[in-house]
Amino acid sequence: MTTVLKLGGSVVTVKDEPETVDDERLAAAADAVVAAEDDLVVIHGGGSFGHHHAAEHGVSTTDGTHDAGAVQAIHGAMARLNARIVAELTERGVPAVPIHPFSAGARTGDGTLKFPPEQIRTALGEGFVPVLHGDLVVQAGEGATVLSGDELVVELASALGADRIGVCSTVPGVLDGDGAVIERIDDIRDVADALGASDATDVSGGMAGKVRTLLALSAPAQIFGPDALAEFLAGGTPGTTVGDGG
Amino acid sequence: MTTVLKLGGSVVTVKDEPETVDDERLAAAADAVVAAEDDLVVIHGGGSFGHHHAAEHGVSTTDGTHDAGAVQAIHGAMARLNARIVAELTERGVPAVPIHPFSAGARTGDGTLKFPPEQIRTALGEGFVPVLHGDLVVQAGEGATVLSGDELVVELASALGADRIGVCSTVPGVLDGDGAVIERIDDIRDVADALGASDATDVSGGMAGKVRTLLALSAPAQIFGPDALAEFLAGGTPGTTVGDGG
Repeated sequence: MTTVLKLGGSVVTVKDEPETVDDERLAAAADAVVAAEDDLVVIHGGGSFGHHHAAEHGVSTTDGTHDAGAVQAIHGAMARLNARIVAELTERGVPAVPIHPFSAGARTGDGTLKFPPEQIRTALGEGFVPVLHGDLVVQAGEGATVLSGDELVVELASALGADRIGVCSTVPGVLDGDGAVIERIDDIRDVADALGASDATDVSGGMAGKVRTLLALSAPAQIFGPDALAEFLAGGTPGTTVGDGG
Repeated sequence: MTTVLKLGGSVVTVKDEPETVDDERLAAAADAVVAAEDDLVVIHGGGSFGHHHAAEHGVSTTDGTHDAGAVQAIHGAMARLNARIVAELTERGVPAVPIHPFSAGARTGDGTLKFPPEQIRTALGEGFVPVLHGDLVVQAGEGATVLSGDELVVELASALGADRIGVCSTVPGVLDGDGAVIERIDDIRDVADALGASDATDVSGGMAGKVRTLLALSAPAQIFGPDALAEFLAGGTPGTTVGDGG
């Protein structure tokens, strides 16, 4: 069994304080990972490490930079957060190893991500827990653009044929209009109103886009909050179940 | 024109002092790189950063480790040296970006290196100078093994179809029995005596092995010392010329 786990940047960092880890939440997340039994790939977001650097330099998933200093500022901050998370896991006996997407992937001129996964597959086979992160990648014609943790989740879950996908963010699941967790989503149309995803051109990167891309995968995904991480890693299906692998 | 430049670990670090950069030599090397006109890929060795960690943990190009702590010690030291070199280049206006081989490559069970080069090709196309380093890579059945800077030079020169290859070490070229620089080597048998490469099973990783693998490439390689780096990057052919692309 291979599980791809996304740890939202907002779960492990303090949102409004640049480059500040939320020590307590990171420790709790790392504690939960110790108990995981499946082959596990961890992907974390940028939170207060990546986003403000990217915004400062005007870099997004589509607008790139050719400024190597900007690349180092953004990528360097993400690598520092990655090192911190890898260290927390290692301290607890998790055989975590860092994989930096900037070193591995690239986009073609039309934005298509090419991310050869053999190093991750091999690492899993050897018992390591690869820890990746939202990052920059080089893109033909654009310099370097943002590769979000969410895009990486979809890419790797598909490339590795993951059996389970977990997206841990600060909300307990996908919420309906009344703020209650939707138990299951099999079709984006069923929740279009609640998510404000009324047309097919949603590019917000918000929950609607997240659900849409997770629905396209051939394995079920769970969207849940930090308190349910241990339950998910123990094989449970907390929060919202997106798709059924059908 | 694409040039692959290897900067020997001993050129930029102080050999006998763990994790110590040779500031003066690194500055001189970085100054020389500023003037390079070709598309340039830089690969540096480990010197006093990588080797003692690898030796301490008993990790080599064939004997691996499954200890994530050892991976982090060895890879982490190399990444620190890489960050230092990238910073020296960036300070001088070279658009250097770090590429960590552990994030990108893997070996199959028989030790064959798989290193998809699309991120490096794209980075070159966008005007960046990718800076790689000797590192570990995951290997099926072995955990993580050493990937030397020399092996990476050969791998990337071939994959990128490099026009020129430069190997800058602490000696001014391949030396004959009298200590004089051999101007040109087209066949390993011509220098077998001088290099002590009397049979085909040389695995020393020393000069004989270096020459042998460079001869197998379809572009000429120069082996030269630090003083000749600027000359090489200006298009010159200092030191020993290995192979002729024929």
